[in-house]
Amino acid sequence: MSLAIATSSIDLFLILDILGTIAFAISGALTAMKKKMDPFGIFIIAFVTAVGGGTLRDILIDANVAWMRNLTFVYVIILAAIVAIIFRKKLSYVRRSLFLFDTIGIALYTVVGVEKGIAADFPAIICIALGTMSACFGGVIRDILCNEIPVIFRKNIYATACILGGSVYFLLLKFNVSENWVVIISFSVVITIRLLAVTFNWSLPSIYKKDAIEND
Amino acid sequence: MSLAIATSSIDLFLILDILGTIAFAISGALTAMKKKMDPFGIFIIAFVTAVGGGTLRDILIDANVAWMRNLTFVYVIILAAIVAIIFRKKLSYVRRSLFLFDTIGIALYTVVGVEKGIAADFPAIICIALGTMSACFGGVIRDILCNEIPVIFRKNIYATACILGGSVYFLLLKFNVSENWVVIISFSVVITIRLLAVTFNWSLPSIYKKDAIEND
Amino acid sequence: MSLAIATSSIDLFLILDILGTIAFAISGALTAMKKKMDPFGIFIIAFVTAVGGGTLRDILIDANVAWMRNLTFVYVIILAAIVAIIFRKKLSYVRRSLFLFDTIGIALYTVVGVEKGIAADFPAIICIALGTMSACFGGVIRDILCNEIPVIFRKNIYATACILGGSVYFLLLKFNVSENWVVIISFSVVITIRLLAVTFNWSLPSIYKKDAIEND
Repeated sequence: MSLAIATSSIDLFLILDILGTIAFAISGALTAMKKKMDPFGIFIIAFVTAVGGGTLRDILIDANVAWMRNLTFVYVIILAAIVAIIFRKKLSYVRRSLFLFDTIGIALYTVVGVEKGIAADFPAIICIALGTMSACFGGVIRDILCNEIPVIFRKNIYATACILGGSVYFLLLKFNVSENWVVIISFSVVITIRLLAVTFNWSLPSIYKKDAIEND
Repeated sequence: MSLAIATSSIDLFLILDILGTIAFAISGALTAMKKKMDPFGIFIIAFVTAVGGGTLRDILIDANVAWMRNLTFVYVIILAAIVAIIFRKKLSYVRRSLFLFDTIGIALYTVVGVEKGIAADFPAIICIALGTMSACFGGVIRDILCNEIPVIFRKNIYATACILGGSVYFLLLKFNVSENWVVIISFSVVITIRLLAVTFNWSLPSIYKKDAIEND
Repeated sequence: MSLAIATSSIDLFLILDILGTIAFAISGALTAMKKKMDPFGIFIIAFVTAVGGGTLRDILIDANVAWMRNLTFVYVIILAAIVAIIFRKKLSYVRRSLFLFDTIGIALYTVVGVEKGIAADFPAIICIALGTMSACFGGVIRDILCNEIPVIFRKNIYATACILGGSVYFLLLKFNVSENWVVIISFSVVITIRLLAVTFNWSLPSIYKKDAIEND
């Protein structure tokens, strides 16, 4: 599908992908350090946070797992984990940049996941799920390995932004918008919703208002 | 193998499958609500509870993952999750029906898993394991995501019923029982054992009677 | 690659593999019994501890999952789990043997994982990761199912021994050492490092010396 744009803007895509990977890896390293893991544990958590979502996607669609053939991201993650360990006390100063990189990362991974789904000829709803999974499930695996209930199951404008971005992708396709614009707009939708959600502290409506759930 | 019966009774199979999916999805949604997850988290847990076991089976035998090509179950799960959220206070009234649907679900998934294993030419013991996995591992993934030790590792006449049903399947095959009867009988064995186990509060013999386990 | 040596020393390899599987299965069973699981849960944990790492490796490289076609290990694991249940109070007497078997197991699985990676033509660093994963990730899945933070993320000379052994494998290959010696030396490196680490109570340098990590 959008291989043309992917090839012509290879450098921009690569830079965005590396920024997202850095943000994911550092978020993993920070979570691991909160759990007082040792350097090996920190690296593994950084790694699965960065590549876990894409790996799960590739296993489900029976595609080759990208990081096993292209070492760029392995090196980026190793470097990011080392930086996170060394500057662990200083990382709060760049929290804003990290948040921005993370937002870029989920937007990019959403689009990439959706396109991989389209290339393998899956229905739209499954493609959107693959995009959301690419963006969000590294964090889910991170939280499971750290023995926490995954944070995106509790404050979900994170995944919701990906779902909406993916839906916009298909909406635009239906209206015959050119592929370049489909990519750019759905990418921007994820980023915008995520930024708005954090700025205005949005969350999905809670369903637990003074009700006691009665079940076994 | 038993594609003949599968085709001729397609409607009955489909109805049973949908009932089982509903029960699994609702059980997932209830567990997620106990953990105070938001709507996105509730849906994801409902989803993995319903399809997780079959997905793991399909990955292990390198088959296509069913729900990614056939959206019926995706819609059923979305609907079941919404119903579970809206009627969360009322679900205790239909607990008995849910238990029955769940029992139908594990019986069906056991037989389906065994047959998929046979179709891919795996040894009998592995086919039985695939059947049990199809029936039970959605619940295991649900419990891991909810940060609990999987409940079926503690009260196991659940999985045991599947193992016995799967074993009966191969026993009957050996005695040249016709395929229709093999399916019907092994299906009934799972249901009967599960119903008896719950009615009479059966569980596997405990091995922890006043002994302190000494190990590092 | 080293299929020649694998075939000529098939018996030795098989014996080492069975010893490693026994150690992994018993370690899984012991962890499950600490969590008061029932016999079914104990068996499942024994099983995933023994085969989980290799299974994850095979899924990632899209190879056939070994234990699904060769039942030897299924029987070994069932037997080991039963022995662990019956002799659970006596296992502390053979703790030293179990530790030795476990060390043999991780050394063997590291070499096997590295060779499977080479056979599928992956880069060196990925082959080392596959070896380490084969050796260590059964234990990670065991700990996740038992609702614990994986122990190898905290005391990591375990995985580090595998990483170093895998690295030595490639170093020797580069210097054109004959394949038999590559296997024997890298196997011995894992065992030696692990034994030294336990004897002298080595661990990776801690990064948490009186510092409070400040981050969100």
